[in-house]
Amino acid sequence: MPYETVALDDVAKEIEIIDQTKLPGEIRLLRLSSIEEFYTAIYLLQVRGAPAIGVFAAFAIYLCACGIKAVDYDGFIAEFDKCKDYLNSSRPTAVNLSWALNRMRDVAQQHSKEPVSSIVDALKEEALLIRREDEDACRAIGENALTLLKPGYGLLTHCNAGSLATSKYGTATAAMYLGNERGYDFHIYCDETRPLLQGARLTAFELANAGMDVTLQCDNMAGALMASGKINAVLVGCDRVAANGDTANKIGTSVVAILAKHYNIPFYVCGPMSTIDPSIASGADIPIEQRKPEEVTDMWYTHPMAPKGVKVFNPAFDVTDHSLITAIITETRIFYPPYFFESHATI
Amino acid sequence: MPYETVALDDVAKEIEIIDQTKLPGEIRLLRLSSIEEFYTAIYLLQVRGAPAIGVFAAFAIYLCACGIKAVDYDGFIAEFDKCKDYLNSSRPTAVNLSWALNRMRDVAQQHSKEPVSSIVDALKEEALLIRREDEDACRAIGENALTLLKPGYGLLTHCNAGSLATSKYGTATAAMYLGNERGYDFHIYCDETRPLLQGARLTAFELANAGMDVTLQCDNMAGALMASGKINAVLVGCDRVAANGDTANKIGTSVVAILAKHYNIPFYVCGPMSTIDPSIASGADIPIEQRKPEEVTDMWYTHPMAPKGVKVFNPAFDVTDHSLITAIITETRIFYPPYFFESHATI
Repeated sequence: MPYETVALDDVAKEIEIIDQTKLPGEIRLLRLSSIEEFYTAIYLLQVRGAPAIGVFAAFAIYLCACGIKAVDYDGFIAEFDKCKDYLNSSRPTAVNLSWALNRMRDVAQQHSKEPVSSIVDALKEEALLIRREDEDACRAIGENALTLLKPGYGLLTHCNAGSLATSKYGTATAAMYLGNERGYDFHIYCDETRPLLQGARLTAFELANAGMDVTLQCDNMAGALMASGKINAVLVGCDRVAANGDTANKIGTSVVAILAKHYNIPFYVCGPMSTIDPSIASGADIPIEQRKPEEVTDMWYTHPMAPKGVKVFNPAFDVTDHSLITAIITETRIFYPPYFFESHATI
Repeated sequence: MPYETVALDDVAKEIEIIDQTKLPGEIRLLRLSSIEEFYTAIYLLQVRGAPAIGVFAAFAIYLCACGIKAVDYDGFIAEFDKCKDYLNSSRPTAVNLSWALNRMRDVAQQHSKEPVSSIVDALKEEALLIRREDEDACRAIGENALTLLKPGYGLLTHCNAGSLATSKYGTATAAMYLGNERGYDFHIYCDETRPLLQGARLTAFELANAGMDVTLQCDNMAGALMASGKINAVLVGCDRVAANGDTANKIGTSVVAILAKHYNIPFYVCGPMSTIDPSIASGADIPIEQRKPEEVTDMWYTHPMAPKGVKVFNPAFDVTDHSLITAIITETRIFYPPYFFESHATI
């Protein structure tokens, strides 16, 4: 079973999360009940992954609402907005954070004529709905992806598009979890994913923990692995998909795609429909964040692993050209080339 | 100027090396004079790189010979062989170690009718010749490679086939050093080269130290770098080249070659003629060493970066298919496809 990354205990009025900063050395569960604890959990990346942050924020603002003493809507919403603004400042660039908080705010507004207790009930329902929608989308992505895979397959993935980043099944990992439940006997190969090693620290951890056959390799070993014949398909997540199918995802994803094409291995991109952005014509229009050099030069603590002051090329993402993508797997359907996403209404 | 990796001080009867285990955090020069120190330097990888080990061993056995008190050949060679066997046991799998020691033994034998002082003189000449031959081969490789490069080029390299592994110019780095001396203004990009980070620790260090413009990137960033248009050519070393041109080199080399082909960038293999092994038909016949999992999972000291006990795929080398290699650059000539090495006599 995948981890329940974010759980609501409505009796104790607590959120339980697995502290991702301690993985994989320590499996530490945190039970959080105060707004300061909620803020800190997001800020310190104890909870991470865009969908997981959205679910966590919805639970957090619901529990804040439970504690508001006001008896009328105006008093209630004034307190609610203070909590919302505070939580929203914990990680301002995380789109799912503000998206989830705004969605919760809209629900409160829709129930403004009702007693505060009814507003709070509606907020709980909405928070649970946000989690259910994420979980359902991931499961549907997994069901769709599973139609493309056979028992015994060797599957390679990059970075962590797994249960720890979502509510339950992950995106790239959804078919792995479903296949595992159904006796598919997959052999999973995880790229460690430098510089931050999400593949080693998180993906290898969560899949091994679910009882799967997991092997870890350095990113530069994926070629030798494919050459050995052990890989039947590649499954990766995505941060944004352009109208022509070009896909931005964790740095190194395009390398895996080029290798897969060279070795004639299918390369599948997995993500919810919300990741497809028809307003962007191609990957050339997706800005790529450059991150700090220390991630590359100073991950090792006892002595530096690169000369002091060396220039570093450290993009967080790269763009995988649409010509390299065998299929894009969403919760509603599987898209094949040529990709042409006009608008969400038409796809 | 590249580092003088192994220097002989014949007045003080010492070898001076740069302690490679301390790089890049500390530039520590070691002066070694006893056979125990010579043994330890090889055993602890304070000196590394096949050609550098060969030169070091030749200097070491020469200095040992200087200390032998025997007055006749039989007495001398008995002591010599004891030293030779001891040094040779420091790293039994390093081919250049036994090759250099045997070559020195042959020279002693050739001079067996002469006084011991003449034998010792001949050993010094031979040791210096071994270094000069290595240095000359590297320089010639660099001159040949430079004919394929233009000023201002962006050059990508993988692992360390540099001055620290040889006597002076390195193989893949030789054209970089020569170009640097001649104002070529190259922009050098070094793959960090997981798991042991020779690119980050050694190549980025020695090239930056020589005043070159050096940028470090994680291995999985080489694709984004090529896509950005910054790379005009790739230069790598080689451990063994088969008759058909298939080339074994540090793990990840084949990945760089596939990326270079995808982005239409020339991919050059650099090495001395002695690296070409016409007795091996293709890369399929080259055995690949699997190394210990801890190199991947435990390079980080304060806490582990992968789940305990995870399976690890950790080959030391991979084979780059001949179809991906633009040219093989040696000290005598540049070979272009189709590669067909029958024997050293015919090439």
